[in-house]
Amino acid sequence: MKCKYCSRRGEVTIPYARLTLCKEHFIEFIQRKVLRTIKRYNLIKPGDKILVAVSGGKDSITLLQLLSEIRKTINYDLYVLHIDLGIGEYSKSSRTLVESYTKQLGLPIIILELKKILGYTISEIAKKLKRPPCSICGIIKRYLFNATAIELKATALATGHNLDDIATFILKEFFAQNLTGIWKLQPYNESYKDIVAARIKPLYETYEEEIRKYAEFMKLPYMQEKCPYYKPTTLDNVLKQKIKEVEEGFPGITIGLIRRFIKNIDKYPRPKTSFLKCRICGLASSGEKCSYCKLTEKLLGEPMGYKTREYIKSLIKELK
Amino acid sequence: MKCKYCSRRGEVTIPYARLTLCKEHFIEFIQRKVLRTIKRYNLIKPGDKILVAVSGGKDSITLLQLLSEIRKTINYDLYVLHIDLGIGEYSKSSRTLVESYTKQLGLPIIILELKKILGYTISEIAKKLKRPPCSICGIIKRYLFNATAIELKATALATGHNLDDIATFILKEFFAQNLTGIWKLQPYNESYKDIVAARIKPLYETYEEEIRKYAEFMKLPYMQEKCPYYKPTTLDNVLKQKIKEVEEGFPGITIGLIRRFIKNIDKYPRPKTSFLKCRICGLASSGEKCSYCKLTEKLLGEPMGYKTREYIKSLIKELK
Repeated sequence: MKCKYCSRRGEVTIPYARLTLCKEHFIEFIQRKVLRTIKRYNLIKPGDKILVAVSGGKDSITLLQLLSEIRKTINYDLYVLHIDLGIGEYSKSSRTLVESYTKQLGLPIIILELKKILGYTISEIAKKLKRPPCSICGIIKRYLFNATAIELKATALATGHNLDDIATFILKEFFAQNLTGIWKLQPYNESYKDIVAARIKPLYETYEEEIRKYAEFMKLPYMQEKCPYYKPTTLDNVLKQKIKEVEEGFPGITIGLIRRFIKNIDKYPRPKTSFLKCRICGLASSGEKCSYCKLTEKLLGEPMGYKTREYIKSLIKELK
Repeated sequence: MKCKYCSRRGEVTIPYARLTLCKEHFIEFIQRKVLRTIKRYNLIKPGDKILVAVSGGKDSITLLQLLSEIRKTINYDLYVLHIDLGIGEYSKSSRTLVESYTKQLGLPIIILELKKILGYTISEIAKKLKRPPCSICGIIKRYLFNATAIELKATALATGHNLDDIATFILKEFFAQNLTGIWKLQPYNESYKDIVAARIKPLYETYEEEIRKYAEFMKLPYMQEKCPYYKPTTLDNVLKQKIKEVEEGFPGITIGLIRRFIKNIDKYPRPKTSFLKCRICGLASSGEKCSYCKLTEKLLGEPMGYKTREYIKSLIKELK
């Protein structure tokens, strides 16, 4: 079959859009789609300072490339954040890859090395605390993302969550009937005072499979292997797989869900919009101490939030 | 492995309840569970008049057997409704089976034969109107269920929807983001004046697989074959299959969803609670004419709601 827009051979078929495209027009299709998402939900404005979290996987590398490209259309500053979790060769390769690609794009990068900040890698912390590495990794990454965006005074933190991720999280919250939790799954989440940074998800309307194809066609350098702690049997991964299977039979059902969900958001019960301040580090917390301060206190006998913020501040100073 | 409650060999393992049971204790387990559902949601009270819709499939036959049995605990009247859709041998066998089993239980039965009421079978109507048989069947069955419950002055119409059905419908409405539509998926739905009959779903908390085992152990006579119009590729059936697959990896996730859903129901936007009256037949309608009157008018040049109600009335008189 031919490309819809030119005489070249079609290389990708996009069932939900009933489109067959050549490589070049597919690349254009994705770039336009992501720009449209950014404009539709007002994710980035001229003059913004965007911090993009880049692990080195296909989603975050694609996001980085696109955000770098889109600066030609909307004029904003772009900073890269990479966290070196210290998960053996996997983290080493990821870091090298992200560093070199960021350099190639000529962007400033902040690298937070867990071993330097806490004296331990994710694997070591999990072992010491006898807790699953993924739950610890979640707490630490969330904290470092937020703290870095705050210290940088970034307008927003951008993450590479794709359409399949979002649909998975929405469905997971629905299974748990956590209807207020669903609010955080919008393309844009507001900041709160100087303790929660705004978050944006520019790949919100882009299927994982589209991102994979795009990264392949653009020959983007990304980590092919998964984190060694990845398990296909977690609820998240099982739900994501099932959503993909439903999408196969009903092309467009996932993007349809997401679109209707955003239109409907006011019908869901609103979460509380106020946060407490952690009395150690001063960032958002659900109680007296934030989960990062609690976790690091258990690990080291001392809550590390404040010191971590000071360390990030010093790295940012060096940037300038 | 042994039965949890006696020294017999375990024949069923119920993963979500972490139970292994012998045949006898499994039967008791299901009977208790359904009785508990009935009491928990106040589905049936002493003195009620329950009309149970029985197609002849495993769910409705099991429901019929259980409702007949439970009359020993709660004293109520039970009537059976069967609709003969005229789908070839499938409908003939279903009808024979339901008639003979109802007779065996000593219960009164109302049989509505579509060919007698409208002059055509489901297959013929679908062909004449060039519409998918399942959508027509849905409209007609819903109407006849409601009309019969109203004419019989039944306290409620009972249907055999099981836990997997309910979870499927809830998820389907969620995919469509029809948050008000979700309200009708409760175990009990109220009547509205004399135009909508109350509905109850006593198998609300029972997995399809449990019902299958129960029907097998109890040697209940039910239709093994599916309706010839059944398609595994409809959205309903695909979603149901995926839910079963998720349940396999996460035993209890489906019943968990349903329990939390019921607790949460007030958090969903309420649907309008008023209905219009069809100006032909006087039953509930979303517009001037109800969908049954519109459908039959297209088919026969005359809306048949009023005549159908009169016919049902005459059948009920013969019962007494």
